[in-house]
Amino acid sequence: MDRAIAYAREHRARFVAELVDLLRIPSVSTAPERAADVARAARWLADHLAGLGFEARVEPTDGHPLVRAEWLGASGRPTVLCYGHFDVQPPDPLALWTRPPFEPAVEGDVLYARGASDDKGQLFIHLKAAEAILRTAGTLPVNVKVLLEGEEEIGSPSLAAYLRRHRRALAAEAALVSDGALAAPDLPTITTGLRGLLYVEIAVRGARRDLHSGQYGGAAPNAVAAAAQIVAGLKDRRGRVRIPGFYARVRPPEPAEREAWARLPITEAAVLREMGTDAAPGEEGVPLIERLWARPTLDVHGIAGGFTGEGMKTVIPARATAKVSMRLVPDQRPGRVFAALSRAVRRLAPPGTSVEVRELASAPPVLVPPDAPAVRAAARALEATFGTAPAYVRSGGSIPVVAGFTHTLRMPTVLMGFGLPDDNLHAPNEKFALANFDRGIEATIRFFYGFGAGGG
Amino acid sequence: MDRAIAYAREHRARFVAELVDLLRIPSVSTAPERAADVARAARWLADHLAGLGFEARVEPTDGHPLVRAEWLGASGRPTVLCYGHFDVQPPDPLALWTRPPFEPAVEGDVLYARGASDDKGQLFIHLKAAEAILRTAGTLPVNVKVLLEGEEEIGSPSLAAYLRRHRRALAAEAALVSDGALAAPDLPTITTGLRGLLYVEIAVRGARRDLHSGQYGGAAPNAVAAAAQIVAGLKDRRGRVRIPGFYARVRPPEPAEREAWARLPITEAAVLREMGTDAAPGEEGVPLIERLWARPTLDVHGIAGGFTGEGMKTVIPARATAKVSMRLVPDQRPGRVFAALSRAVRRLAPPGTSVEVRELASAPPVLVPPDAPAVRAAARALEATFGTAPAYVRSGGSIPVVAGFTHTLRMPTVLMGFGLPDDNLHAPNEKFALANFDRGIEATIRFFYGFGAGGG
Repeated sequence: MDRAIAYAREHRARFVAELVDLLRIPSVSTAPERAADVARAARWLADHLAGLGFEARVEPTDGHPLVRAEWLGASGRPTVLCYGHFDVQPPDPLALWTRPPFEPAVEGDVLYARGASDDKGQLFIHLKAAEAILRTAGTLPVNVKVLLEGEEEIGSPSLAAYLRRHRRALAAEAALVSDGALAAPDLPTITTGLRGLLYVEIAVRGARRDLHSGQYGGAAPNAVAAAAQIVAGLKDRRGRVRIPGFYARVRPPEPAEREAWARLPITEAAVLREMGTDAAPGEEGVPLIERLWARPTLDVHGIAGGFTGEGMKTVIPARATAKVSMRLVPDQRPGRVFAALSRAVRRLAPPGTSVEVRELASAPPVLVPPDAPAVRAAARALEATFGTAPAYVRSGGSIPVVAGFTHTLRMPTVLMGFGLPDDNLHAPNEKFALANFDRGIEATIRFFYGFGAGGG
Repeated sequence: MDRAIAYAREHRARFVAELVDLLRIPSVSTAPERAADVARAARWLADHLAGLGFEARVEPTDGHPLVRAEWLGASGRPTVLCYGHFDVQPPDPLALWTRPPFEPAVEGDVLYARGASDDKGQLFIHLKAAEAILRTAGTLPVNVKVLLEGEEEIGSPSLAAYLRRHRRALAAEAALVSDGALAAPDLPTITTGLRGLLYVEIAVRGARRDLHSGQYGGAAPNAVAAAAQIVAGLKDRRGRVRIPGFYARVRPPEPAEREAWARLPITEAAVLREMGTDAAPGEEGVPLIERLWARPTLDVHGIAGGFTGEGMKTVIPARATAKVSMRLVPDQRPGRVFAALSRAVRRLAPPGTSVEVRELASAPPVLVPPDAPAVRAAARALEATFGTAPAYVRSGGSIPVVAGFTHTLRMPTVLMGFGLPDDNLHAPNEKFALANFDRGIEATIRFFYGFGAGGG
């Protein structure tokens, strides 16, 4: 293990040069004219993995291809499924970049480029850790499967079906995902929970057609008013969601988790600054971090219907739709919440209106047990690398691939990111601190050895 | 008077032929390419009035011109200001017309054409009544001023300023407006009240920018949710507007008015059928007609902000605007209601949001005293013509010109319409029953004589 770590230090300049090559490919998945670049990045990675000794191939999908690779020479040892994505966000607005987004530049040990942190720089950590071990020991201490996606930034439309179809081929004891950030500089971080999502569209019908408010105001059902009443009625004044049974299956965080969160260097003042507000409204009496990570929420995203142009029109709208989503936490189930929500919405619909609730998307919440052997191995690897014990955090967002690993492939996921909170993901001047690239490789080498030795 | 009525009967065919000429002009005020036609209709009417013996001219405005005319030879007699509009709604959708909209056709004593009822056919009634009297008596029993507008269908943008600037020239004892319908066939009808309007835009600000609901859901202010809460909070569950003091100045209808309304052939079933609903929600315990005519209302017309496109976006909107209007009734004052609404909206704004309320339009309510001499003269004229006493109704809508006559020119307005409720105004196959054209001319002749004789 020490020889592998030394090898990585020795070859650092080449590692960075290779990463720069990968970052030069503008693999913007949402831009149709970049499809060939996304495919080129896939080819580049498959070739690179093959060069390391993996059996690697590019797999077509209905959208952008993905890369599958495996090295299965560690007979009797556990298997790790490494996930990453090689597509990137569009670089717009280009004018705000101080260097061209696809001409990577290193300044003061910081690498600037679109995709440097999200996620090419981080997926490359796994590859370089494997190389360092293979080149020094000739073999890996674990079996390694690799799954690299080219559609993460457009919502992973092909991935769920792919996981279902290749359940057996992707089987592993644990997944490893490095696509996030440390909670603070120098603080190694493991994410142990992700919220789920239930996204619905509520369609309200009132009269047969839009009516004139002079002629019918005082007697006509108003579909936009009904949508507003429904949306407003789904939460009480204390920020609690008013869907019967909504909180019944919410599992409170463990006392140890709560204590750990209280010690994190995340302050309400900092969150207010990020949001640009003077208040952080939410459930009364619940600490901010718990509201963001461990409590379910409900938000309206928009209400369509009636007249919203310049000026005025005295219409009583006959139709309205509201887009509403809920972030869900363990052990809420999207299907049950959908049924309860539908009932609540119907009950809130005022006289003269009818409603329809349609599900647009759902993802179950994910909780990774902190005492899973892979997580314990990751914690030890991080502590040995950083010299400090990792923080356990959760994320308020949903990562559908992790829900897939959890519920389809039924394996725990080690969420171990090496970015920084200010890496400018999805924004101009994305960057990646190369010190964390090094620490990521070292931690991953240690993780492979520790997990391979059967050790949590 | 009898000779004038006989003259009108005699010359009916020519009257209709002249009206058909006027209806051939496609004076669609909202269509820029029809501006010359609107001007042509103005010219046609000014020439026609001059031919009758009026001093008449076309007056330019910033938009479409209007027509001013006067016959002031009845020294010592009262003056009537006759109002009408010669612009029409667009004929779209053209495919639904069974005859071309600007090629008038008479079938079974019904005249079909765009503008037949709204308002060319009705303004022509006043002109033909004046002609019948002038040609038989050589003089009119009242002084008559005429104001014909070419912008009514686009909201009368030039009229209010015109009334203010020509207050003295337009001075009269009463205004006469025939731009409406009988409450039922054969039931002569006088409108004694119009609701006012206060139309506002409520702008809500939450965070500095749109936020991601995964990252900030549970702590971020949601501007669309706030707009929904404000809109929903402005009414209670029993349909009452929750603005402090909102109802303080609402004058209840007179007992006699209420009794008369209860006898009108307007049923809840008919209103439900028109709206295409199975409920007519509104203030609990208030009869339907009273809700439509004599009670103030509040309606939201649309809520903009966030994401309302196809599919989903997990945005917590930072901005939202709601368009809200209130129909006001005597003696509510738009200015006071605006101040009270603004306070109520600010109070309803949830933590983390700020609001701004902007007035887009306002018109005071109008009540015409049924015992004003002009109204009494009109009632007698209608009863003598139809053989039955007129119904007194109100309208739930606002007619800005009448608010101008009431509050700027300070004269009562006789609202005496001769259309039918099913005349297809603003719709394909607009029509006008020529029997009511005849009755309108006779009633107007009788009104001029009765009012001129100083008689209420």
